Amino acid sequence: MNLQSSTKSFGGTQSIYSHASEACNCDMKFAVYLPPEDKGGKGTFPVLYWLSGLTCTEENFITKAGAQRIAAELGVVIVAPDTSPRGPKVPDDPDEAYDFGLGAGFYVNASQDPWSEHYNMYDYIARELPTLVSTAFPVDAARSGIFGHSMGGHGALTIHLKNPEIFKTCSAFSPIVAPSQVPWGIKALSNYLGPDEAAWAEHDASVLVSRIPSKTNILIDQGTADNFLKEQLKPEIFAAAADRAGQSYTLRMQDGYDHSYYFIASFVEDHVRWHMERL
Amino acid sequence: MNLQSSTKSFGGTQSIYSHASEACNCDMKFAVYLPPEDKGGKGTFPVLYWLSGLTCTEENFITKAGAQRIAAELGVVIVAPDTSPRGPKVPDDPDEAYDFGLGAGFYVNASQDPWSEHYNMYDYIARELPTLVSTAFPVDAARSGIFGHSMGGHGALTIHLKNPEIFKTCSAFSPIVAPSQVPWGIKALSNYLGPDEAAWAEHDASVLVSRIPSKTNILIDQGTADNFLKEQLKPEIFAAAADRAGQSYTLRMQDGYDHSYYFIASFVEDHVRWHMERL
Repeated sequence: MNLQSSTKSFGGTQSIYSHASEACNCDMKFAVYLPPEDKGGKGTFPVLYWLSGLTCTEENFITKAGAQRIAAELGVVIVAPDTSPRGPKVPDDPDEAYDFGLGAGFYVNASQDPWSEHYNMYDYIARELPTLVSTAFPVDAARSGIFGHSMGGHGALTIHLKNPEIFKTCSAFSPIVAPSQVPWGIKALSNYLGPDEAAWAEHDASVLVSRIPSKTNILIDQGTADNFLKEQLKPEIFAAAADRAGQSYTLRMQDGYDHSYYFIASFVEDHVRWHMERL
Repeated sequence: MNLQSSTKSFGGTQSIYSHASEACNCDMKFAVYLPPEDKGGKGTFPVLYWLSGLTCTEENFITKAGAQRIAAELGVVIVAPDTSPRGPKVPDDPDEAYDFGLGAGFYVNASQDPWSEHYNMYDYIARELPTLVSTAFPVDAARSGIFGHSMGGHGALTIHLKNPEIFKTCSAFSPIVAPSQVPWGIKALSNYLGPDEAAWAEHDASVLVSRIPSKTNILIDQGTADNFLKEQLKPEIFAAAADRAGQSYTLRMQDGYDHSYYFIASFVEDHVRWHMERL
């Protein structure tokens, strides 16, 4: 790992690292916030993984969400990775669209050429990054949660639902909950995974929620003034699927909030507290 | 005034407006945060003006500092203007350097060509903007304070010291306290104001602090790991001048913090509380 930057924040340290990723076959960056040392019990901290949305890098959350304050207060590490593989060898959307390719890894392992060589964000987030973080930082991996925004909300939900023993708690802001049924998701999944919709279902939270045997516990905040609510997000699909499956969840429609980091900043303390009460 | 954007944040509203500025002879933008309506006493709020540093616009503070949370809690309006005139007719540094011209108005009224037509940020901040804000928003102008960062800390200190009856409280992060004696300030003041150093003194906080008759009360936070501390900021010059003048101030050297918005975010709650206790 190479330290890219390190800055004191609320008594702790906000850093960015790069490293050679085996899953993505390129250098990847992630941000990590370490709370003040004296907030650790027995020298280790619980850890939350934050997954950002379309167009984001590892920097958006750490500069805009203001989560370091509550992470410092409660004593939790927050890891925020980039949203796709990067670098000169990594292919992008031929049209350079914002919703596919660079900045839009969608947290799946691509099976289709030319994406499969690098676009393996599922393995990166669910396997490689937690192993690296547990080795390199003072975290208690048994107390890991995951949360995210929009495409990253999709990532958090699906990775939690597929790995509830690793990521024990999950919350999301404005998540894509049914990628198989909305334009962003259909574009990404058909390109990364090919035409077989059975493969898509493995990364669709509204399908996965009916498949897992254990009871889960999920918090979703969705702004009512979100421009993407009706076409891309559709939280009612997840709610109906979870209800049918008898899975518990909390969906809060937040009046007047939009899709921006102003929304995330307004409720990120709630989310961090929610995870910490359960981890 | 034209509303450019409006976003719900911590129950209040974060907006950006543009308007034709008489002082700067161009369109100017400013951000304004209005706390939740029910936090206002008699329908009005105290108001803080935030002045940003070199290279910033009206957006840096509102996206990175996280001040909306405490502004919402305490019920205070925060106004964050751009840092220079802008637009196709506004001249920039011939070398397009970051420390002069666009993004670097230095909160003075330029007397030299070609700057004097537009670069009148002193009049804009000290006169035009408060009048506009008092007319357009539910603020109690008798409860106004000013704060800022780096070049904006210089602006906050000097505008407070020259107008303590308008801006009753003042705080600064990592301010330029003695522009007549440091490279950033010498470049800006000599270009905007010409070679007469008597004109510079009118915008040098370490000079002004010895000239005002009334007792002032100023809070300064300065990170010890700030790359600009020893060459550009030199808070000891202000401290010595204030001590000689018998003016009260608080200078806090914050161990390990740098010049970034991570530093500002870590202490902005302290600053807003400090102003509110005095307004």
